[in-house]
Amino acid sequence: MPLPLLNCDMGESFGNWSIGLDNEVMPFVDCANIACGYHASDPHVMRRTVKLAARYGVRIGAHPGYPDLMGFGRRSMACSQSEVEDMVLYQIGALAGICQAEGTQLSYIKPHGALYNDMAANPELLEGVMRAVHAYDPGLPLMIMATANPEPHRELAAKLRVNLWFETFADRAYEANGHLASRRLPDAVHHEQATIVDQAVMLAKGEPLTARDGTSLSLPCDTLCVHGDNPESVAAVRAIRDAFNNLGAA
Amino acid sequence: MPLPLLNCDMGESFGNWSIGLDNEVMPFVDCANIACGYHASDPHVMRRTVKLAARYGVRIGAHPGYPDLMGFGRRSMACSQSEVEDMVLYQIGALAGICQAEGTQLSYIKPHGALYNDMAANPELLEGVMRAVHAYDPGLPLMIMATANPEPHRELAAKLRVNLWFETFADRAYEANGHLASRRLPDAVHHEQATIVDQAVMLAKGEPLTARDGTSLSLPCDTLCVHGDNPESVAAVRAIRDAFNNLGAA
Amino acid sequence: MPLPLLNCDMGESFGNWSIGLDNEVMPFVDCANIACGYHASDPHVMRRTVKLAARYGVRIGAHPGYPDLMGFGRRSMACSQSEVEDMVLYQIGALAGICQAEGTQLSYIKPHGALYNDMAANPELLEGVMRAVHAYDPGLPLMIMATANPEPHRELAAKLRVNLWFETFADRAYEANGHLASRRLPDAVHHEQATIVDQAVMLAKGEPLTARDGTSLSLPCDTLCVHGDNPESVAAVRAIRDAFNNLGAA
Amino acid sequence: MPLPLLNCDMGESFGNWSIGLDNEVMPFVDCANIACGYHASDPHVMRRTVKLAARYGVRIGAHPGYPDLMGFGRRSMACSQSEVEDMVLYQIGALAGICQAEGTQLSYIKPHGALYNDMAANPELLEGVMRAVHAYDPGLPLMIMATANPEPHRELAAKLRVNLWFETFADRAYEANGHLASRRLPDAVHHEQATIVDQAVMLAKGEPLTARDGTSLSLPCDTLCVHGDNPESVAAVRAIRDAFNNLGAA
Repeated sequence: MPLPLLNCDMGESFGNWSIGLDNEVMPFVDCANIACGYHASDPHVMRRTVKLAARYGVRIGAHPGYPDLMGFGRRSMACSQSEVEDMVLYQIGALAGICQAEGTQLSYIKPHGALYNDMAANPELLEGVMRAVHAYDPGLPLMIMATANPEPHRELAAKLRVNLWFETFADRAYEANGHLASRRLPDAVHHEQATIVDQAVMLAKGEPLTARDGTSLSLPCDTLCVHGDNPESVAAVRAIRDAFNNLGAA
Repeated sequence: MPLPLLNCDMGESFGNWSIGLDNEVMPFVDCANIACGYHASDPHVMRRTVKLAARYGVRIGAHPGYPDLMGFGRRSMACSQSEVEDMVLYQIGALAGICQAEGTQLSYIKPHGALYNDMAANPELLEGVMRAVHAYDPGLPLMIMATANPEPHRELAAKLRVNLWFETFADRAYEANGHLASRRLPDAVHHEQATIVDQAVMLAKGEPLTARDGTSLSLPCDTLCVHGDNPESVAAVRAIRDAFNNLGAA
Repeated sequence: MPLPLLNCDMGESFGNWSIGLDNEVMPFVDCANIACGYHASDPHVMRRTVKLAARYGVRIGAHPGYPDLMGFGRRSMACSQSEVEDMVLYQIGALAGICQAEGTQLSYIKPHGALYNDMAANPELLEGVMRAVHAYDPGLPLMIMATANPEPHRELAAKLRVNLWFETFADRAYEANGHLASRRLPDAVHHEQATIVDQAVMLAKGEPLTARDGTSLSLPCDTLCVHGDNPESVAAVRAIRDAFNNLGAA
Repeated sequence: MPLPLLNCDMGESFGNWSIGLDNEVMPFVDCANIACGYHASDPHVMRRTVKLAARYGVRIGAHPGYPDLMGFGRRSMACSQSEVEDMVLYQIGALAGICQAEGTQLSYIKPHGALYNDMAANPELLEGVMRAVHAYDPGLPLMIMATANPEPHRELAAKLRVNLWFETFADRAYEANGHLASRRLPDAVHHEQATIVDQAVMLAKGEPLTARDGTSLSLPCDTLCVHGDNPESVAAVRAIRDAFNNLGAA
């Protein structure tokens, strides 16, 4: 069983505004989810981020979002299936063009924020995203949240001829159905590095987690989401990387 | 000597707002300059316009502009060379992605509005545009305004390894230096269809025009700009097409 | 019983894109709902529309929407109460500033599109809108859709000290609960001018309508929504105005 | 002679992106130039910043800019006089609406970035800004850069019935004509706190500065621009405030 790929949101600065420790975290991840200008980023930030990923040999993923800079793509928008399809396609192409100019290419697609959550909950929107991915390049995997019952997503992906990469989280508590515990709940987010690394290792080894209600939860895990927002999260990424290196060597 | 290609701005609607008689003019042109979302258009309009061009076998060109929907890309913005380079690249990629999804591809690049004018006047910005085109695909020609002295533009293009397509206008009066007469002047714009067709034929045959000061003006002409804004301009395109068909048959 | 005020969306052009027969319909309405730049319009269009309304003595209402030009404010966005409150306030102020420069002032507030529908369905968002209106000027009425049971909206308005103007539609079929019949249903929209005028007169006289299920439906009606999109809708407005003039004279 | 007012750009965060030490610098300034959503900020940031200014009794100024979030309003845009007039008016109104909701009001107008520079260099644009200010409220002063020859600006202001507040900079070297030395030059920006405070005190006392060419330069100084970008600039503001308190006490 291969180790899950560590993926991290990158390139979320915009114009004069900077966020994220991209330079610090890039050396330790496998996959950079690069914002495409709708929820964050601009052409200059995108190009700089693509160059940075290429320098470290990190795979580049398009990270398309809703067209809502003010809300950072975190507010659901009631878009139709074809609106979602076309806006995902636009953003994929924009980032792919920058990759092409830098002599590299896209490796996968991961929708951002509210679009990521909405597609997991709404098959009509998921189909829109999948249609965009398939129309652009059926060889590009689509990252989607792993749940306790991934079959419906697998079936839709098979029907629309798209490959899925199931994603899990090492720093979040899970409900029994495999959904992330709401951030409003206490203990929804793990802050202890040791807890985060332990959960990452369990996910990597295919071991079940314990959901909030105490039941056992098995999740498919092709990729693990990590964060580069602040020094603590970067330290956690390095610790997960070290743990994975030990696993791989074992 | 091949006939100049007829190129026309297309896909300049945006969301709920529609402009342009794209359906009426598409059958009569060779090249569709398709807006890329910065000065006009959105992913849905772009996709519809790409489909329409593909249906008629019309070559598709990216029509990137300044990021100014409110001003329709007609207001110069004091962008740096690298800002221009990256924003052109972004827009090329976005349209190329939609082309790829529709099983077609880009054939050329034509900047829009103020960006088109600014690059002709400012070698630093022109170099930014050329860098974007070359980095994306050195095989894609760049449309640029023909003037009485095209050598400086040819030299820069040779240096940056970009192909130029020189563009002329059939419905505009010219100054002696090959610049378009200002729209503020009387007689700057030809409204008579016969005048427009005559000028188109002269340009196609490589015959010199008469500039506003009475001097003779020779212009390189790889492509001719036509318009699909209203029924009169569409009628003029059809008349030019008929005249070119006669030329070709002669 | 006073006649309901005829209100009409106005000033929904944007930059180079024009829509709406504002000049034609303005002479026949009482209230102009003027877009404020978030879902449509720009400062220049706003000023021109304010001038036009002032010339005809038409009351000016702020018509704030979601920040979604591409979607014309017709896509719900999952905004928080305070986000809605602040974005409504921003748009009210922007239009009020233009009114002040033109020596006139706002008379009411009518949210646009998805925001209008969302506030009617979601008390939390309605409270956000009401907080904005009250904080800006408690004397400004807020237009809201009339339903068969307006009491909950009246209660919230009383609690937050905002005046409501209930709005009805002459060209739409109603469900028994006073909601508009979905546009997906046949007969949801009246196209016959006589039918529209009849419904307008019944609403004006306080007579009950017949809902789609055949039951009788009484609606409060402070104002009636009319349209200036095309010649047919403008003709309908003139016909309603004539009918109201006859009512008033009777 | 009254002490110059200390003015500082504030509220330049946007959505998820934060910049500026507004909380730290607010207690030490007289005037907060609050961004209005075109070059930076959003309704929520604007409201928070208005509240903060009101809490400290700091005068609130509208800080309108070009509609260019990606460029932070630092790129000149070739807007017409009436476009500038209307976009300034829109932004003034938006901020004034938020002030009204918070029980406070605008005290002055200071254009931002490229618009600030362009209006100082271009009388046509300056007239557009002045028309907006006068139309909105002739009692609101307009901040403009002090130069060695302020008469032309004074004359235009008198003609258009607008009050000017001339602004100087304590941390910048000046050319003989009173323009700021280009940032590309060495020594264009003062970094030593003592140098900054000395220049502030000289400006406050009406003493001439020494321009880069060694000549003496007298500048009118109604207000002094200070910065809250980082801890060093905030420390400089506190030091200027202390120096001014000593001046006032003397």
